[in-house]
Amino acid sequence: MHLRRLLALSALLLITAANTGAQTKSVAERLGYPADAKLLIVHADDLAVAHSVDAASFDALDKSAVTSASIMVPCPWLTEVATYAKNHPDADLGLHLTLTSEWKIYRWGPVESKDRVPSLLDPAGYLWSEVAPAVRSIKPEEAEREIRAQIEHAIAAGIRPTHLDTHMGTLIATPDLFAVFVKIAHEYKLPFLAPRLLGERGKLLSLLNEKEVLLDSVVMANPSVHADAWKDFYSDAIKNLKPGLTEMIVHLGHDDAELQAVMMDHPDYGSAWRQRDYDFVTSPDFKKVLRENNVILVKWKDLQKLLK
Amino acid sequence: MHLRRLLALSALLLITAANTGAQTKSVAERLGYPADAKLLIVHADDLAVAHSVDAASFDALDKSAVTSASIMVPCPWLTEVATYAKNHPDADLGLHLTLTSEWKIYRWGPVESKDRVPSLLDPAGYLWSEVAPAVRSIKPEEAEREIRAQIEHAIAAGIRPTHLDTHMGTLIATPDLFAVFVKIAHEYKLPFLAPRLLGERGKLLSLLNEKEVLLDSVVMANPSVHADAWKDFYSDAIKNLKPGLTEMIVHLGHDDAELQAVMMDHPDYGSAWRQRDYDFVTSPDFKKVLRENNVILVKWKDLQKLLK
Repeated sequence: MHLRRLLALSALLLITAANTGAQTKSVAERLGYPADAKLLIVHADDLAVAHSVDAASFDALDKSAVTSASIMVPCPWLTEVATYAKNHPDADLGLHLTLTSEWKIYRWGPVESKDRVPSLLDPAGYLWSEVAPAVRSIKPEEAEREIRAQIEHAIAAGIRPTHLDTHMGTLIATPDLFAVFVKIAHEYKLPFLAPRLLGERGKLLSLLNEKEVLLDSVVMANPSVHADAWKDFYSDAIKNLKPGLTEMIVHLGHDDAELQAVMMDHPDYGSAWRQRDYDFVTSPDFKKVLRENNVILVKWKDLQKLLK
Repeated sequence: MHLRRLLALSALLLITAANTGAQTKSVAERLGYPADAKLLIVHADDLAVAHSVDAASFDALDKSAVTSASIMVPCPWLTEVATYAKNHPDADLGLHLTLTSEWKIYRWGPVESKDRVPSLLDPAGYLWSEVAPAVRSIKPEEAEREIRAQIEHAIAAGIRPTHLDTHMGTLIATPDLFAVFVKIAHEYKLPFLAPRLLGERGKLLSLLNEKEVLLDSVVMANPSVHADAWKDFYSDAIKNLKPGLTEMIVHLGHDDAELQAVMMDHPDYGSAWRQRDYDFVTSPDFKKVLRENNVILVKWKDLQKLLK
């Protein structure tokens, strides 16, 4: 189980830097800020996976403790999130495109008809639990079919997505899947979690165009952070922010009976972890460190406007 | 929303009596009890719908507070129930065949590929919320395909079902759907919730054979029972049991954040209702009234043996 998370983490840690192509102005300048401004998106992942996650994330959005969030469309609580989205048309909500179903006793399948995406299904008939077998099995054309179905289902449910990202990094785990991700994001004119691709995957940067919005860095807690160092980890990250555009990815939830069962036997990104993230982002300490370090909070919808 | 529940309730209240056909011995005699014995199955519905329901139902099964339970295979927590079933091979678990997805902000789809069962899907792409539109839309051959998929999925997950019943009574709501239900139950050699069909549906009794196990009566709380009369309702029902085979259907759960959200805006069969059912079946009062009234508890697996 750890391997899966480490893979996802490694994939996400690749997300760094880069203004490429003809674009010479920084994102900050394009948004009307000084060139050396420190812009931060505070982003809650995994909406719709569980009521506990939704309740904590809605509360954080309502308090402006996070700027943005993204939604797992195949998950059971999608209708709860769609209801929130319709009641909060200004909320900055994207889609956390989902090709995996990673928890032990709580599973989901695709949005598409199963017989149209057989390579997405594990032997039990759900989406694969881990990234490695998922990317070995998944055919890019079936991934495209499924993420298109997820976007259309979300729109039909009343969600107006402001951005796209990828659950457990599956869509940035191989060049073929990344190509699908970029194609669909361009088609829907949505900004997306765009990594600087290293090594042999570097050639994929050519898929990106001059208007693309790229993240200069990502902050995310990882299993090496001790529970009692949670606040220090985030505070230090804020103090060390460099000029440019950073996304801080958090996983919010309440450490209750539902979430403990969903995340059974998996402390990493588990129930207590999500309670710690919730406690930190809603704390006065977080607001204070942002203010003291002149951090400018931005939303994906601000970036979306730059694509037009 | 009330209409749906009343329809389901009406359908279930049709489940009464009857030894038909060539069989002359009562179920009690066939099981080796005196002809006038009062046999009772205490049955928890809706396993797999929510962790809260599973936790309460597992606890009641472990305490022998209920004899039996049935599982909703398309629901998100199926893997939790399959794990319990594998760890408790003697537990009397059937399948609560599910063609509806009735809660407001928490939905599920079919087990079958969606494009093989389009008549089972509402405009949002989930199973229908209510029985009336469901039975207007559902093609019997697609219902058969789906319930066959549910049974095969449960077996593949490690569940060995002892009986079949029908969520919200959908499979006993029309003659065509009842015919599918009987056909599949016979094929898998499983006893099932068999109603005496009234009025124009009486002719369907001809589908039943001499070995069939039929319930003489069903006890289930309904919305006319006040919360403070819960214990009296069940105690009176036990005191008034007639000789024969009765099923008492209960809906167990803990009145917690998850279940309150699942069952939002629906007090009937809702979260507090399920807590009351759980509190009653696990109380000393229930054991006492059963003992004082010489009630013999039986399981569906006892009845399953009569089919062989």
